[in-house]
Amino acid sequence: MQSFNHLVTDFNNRFAGRHFPETPASLYDPCQYFLGIGGKRIRPILCLMGNELFDNIHQDAYQVATAIELFHNFTLIHDDIMDNASLRRGMETVHVKYNPSTALLGGDVMMIKAYEYLNTINLNHLHPILQLFNTTAKEVCEGQQLDMDFEQREEVRLDEYIHMITLKTSVLLAGSLKMGAILGGAGEGNCNHLYEFGKNLGIAFQIQDDYLDAFGDPEKFGKEVGGDIKQNKKTFLLLHALEVANAEQKQLLKNVMEANPADKVAQVLSIYKDCGVDEWANTLKNQYLNIALKHLDDIAVLTKRKAPLIELADYLIQRDV
Amino acid sequence: MQSFNHLVTDFNNRFAGRHFPETPASLYDPCQYFLGIGGKRIRPILCLMGNELFDNIHQDAYQVATAIELFHNFTLIHDDIMDNASLRRGMETVHVKYNPSTALLGGDVMMIKAYEYLNTINLNHLHPILQLFNTTAKEVCEGQQLDMDFEQREEVRLDEYIHMITLKTSVLLAGSLKMGAILGGAGEGNCNHLYEFGKNLGIAFQIQDDYLDAFGDPEKFGKEVGGDIKQNKKTFLLLHALEVANAEQKQLLKNVMEANPADKVAQVLSIYKDCGVDEWANTLKNQYLNIALKHLDDIAVLTKRKAPLIELADYLIQRDV
Repeated sequence: MQSFNHLVTDFNNRFAGRHFPETPASLYDPCQYFLGIGGKRIRPILCLMGNELFDNIHQDAYQVATAIELFHNFTLIHDDIMDNASLRRGMETVHVKYNPSTALLGGDVMMIKAYEYLNTINLNHLHPILQLFNTTAKEVCEGQQLDMDFEQREEVRLDEYIHMITLKTSVLLAGSLKMGAILGGAGEGNCNHLYEFGKNLGIAFQIQDDYLDAFGDPEKFGKEVGGDIKQNKKTFLLLHALEVANAEQKQLLKNVMEANPADKVAQVLSIYKDCGVDEWANTLKNQYLNIALKHLDDIAVLTKRKAPLIELADYLIQRDV
Repeated sequence: MQSFNHLVTDFNNRFAGRHFPETPASLYDPCQYFLGIGGKRIRPILCLMGNELFDNIHQDAYQVATAIELFHNFTLIHDDIMDNASLRRGMETVHVKYNPSTALLGGDVMMIKAYEYLNTINLNHLHPILQLFNTTAKEVCEGQQLDMDFEQREEVRLDEYIHMITLKTSVLLAGSLKMGAILGGAGEGNCNHLYEFGKNLGIAFQIQDDYLDAFGDPEKFGKEVGGDIKQNKKTFLLLHALEVANAEQKQLLKNVMEANPADKVAQVLSIYKDCGVDEWANTLKNQYLNIALKHLDDIAVLTKRKAPLIELADYLIQRDV
């Protein structure tokens, strides 16, 4: 069994080469530039871990992991256009550094390249891998559309938000694990438990991300705290606060969001605390984490094989924030 | 053997249903709207014809034909964004009727849907079909990028333009035929001849399209004649004129293109005629058509099976315009 860090190094070494032809450079250099910005490569590592849970890592798992990482980068390039984002990991986004048409087309060709990697795997796994990849890819698009829809809506229910987050981010984590498992010869039951592990872990991670944006230690968080609050972003915290706040608190919250006073973050945090949003978020996060770990528990392989996935969960989710 | 018209009716009946889930309607209704605008469905019909050249039409050929048509529509939705086009076949484009983000994401999900159709075919053909589909899809993107690059360039050589047109439009016609042939069990030699037939027919068609835009009968052409000239679009005619014109004609042409006088179309046509561009274009078109027909001739099946493809070539290319 390889540790998370070892798998990251292994994957990064394999992924580092050029994935595209030299010409037309106007199309392929922007693609290569974006891949060079880097990233945590969580999704391909999940695919490798899902594979190694059941068998030694197979060459096909590296191919599918590469396809997954390319797909993920395709969604980032297109999301950056839609969100009008100028920076990604501190570097210029493709549509800013080059132009929107090239970012659009570069994303397209990166997705096609992902399918080229998928088409190199052994024929006996091609149908189920493609099926899961396609379903997951569609769901990620649906999640992005719902996210954009929600930004335009006045009211969003918490269950709708969880559904959106599940589609936008969790299903790709879950699908990555399950694709690895399929390639490792895992049965349907084990595959599904692993999928649910990834899906619930992803939701727990997103709750934590929303929590840390508001309540995190600025030095540890790495981003400016309160960014979501400043942008009136619909997060787990805001949606819950709007659900549980009394009439007075609700009105105050809406006023502050609209007026954008200088102490907006402090005021909103104060309302959040009055409503018990911080404790609620921690409880909810732990609920999803526990569901995830229960599914991992239910996978019928030797316990020691699960160690890297537990290590990963510990790495992603802090139990006591 | 079924006639072209019969195949169109057959395919349209099968293609008419909904290809996407009901929700999120904000993502999938725009996709369905665009498919409803219609189109000549040339590419899927080519896939069916390529299949029927070697065997009775197989269910898999309808699935691949559907994937091809969805892929083609995905490229149109994204091209319309890049070209900032507000109308397509007289109807509002997706980014105008809805918004650019939805057009971007709707195109993405339409491409994924294409791969879902591909993944329904018999496993013994899946690898080669996916390989050809992926290669073709990448080439179409490369062609679109080159087209955009050329619009920004002062000088484009004719061979570069032919290369761009081949990628942007011909390889998908060729690939559609060849995918049908692969599904019909055709050997490599026959597959390649059929591919070359489609590729060269596509180039001949594009030369004719450029020709008709300048010299066509307005009543028969269906579009305003001279549109390319008004936009200074780089076409077969313009690139050739710039290659063969003497210094004086060349200067006159450049002046007219820059100054945009009221009689611009008439002036440019006059220079084209002085340079013999019209006859040259007809000759070049017939050269490509003859290469196409020679490849069709070389396919080792009974001559009568080729009748629908000859009918198609006659329908697409007028020998004496």
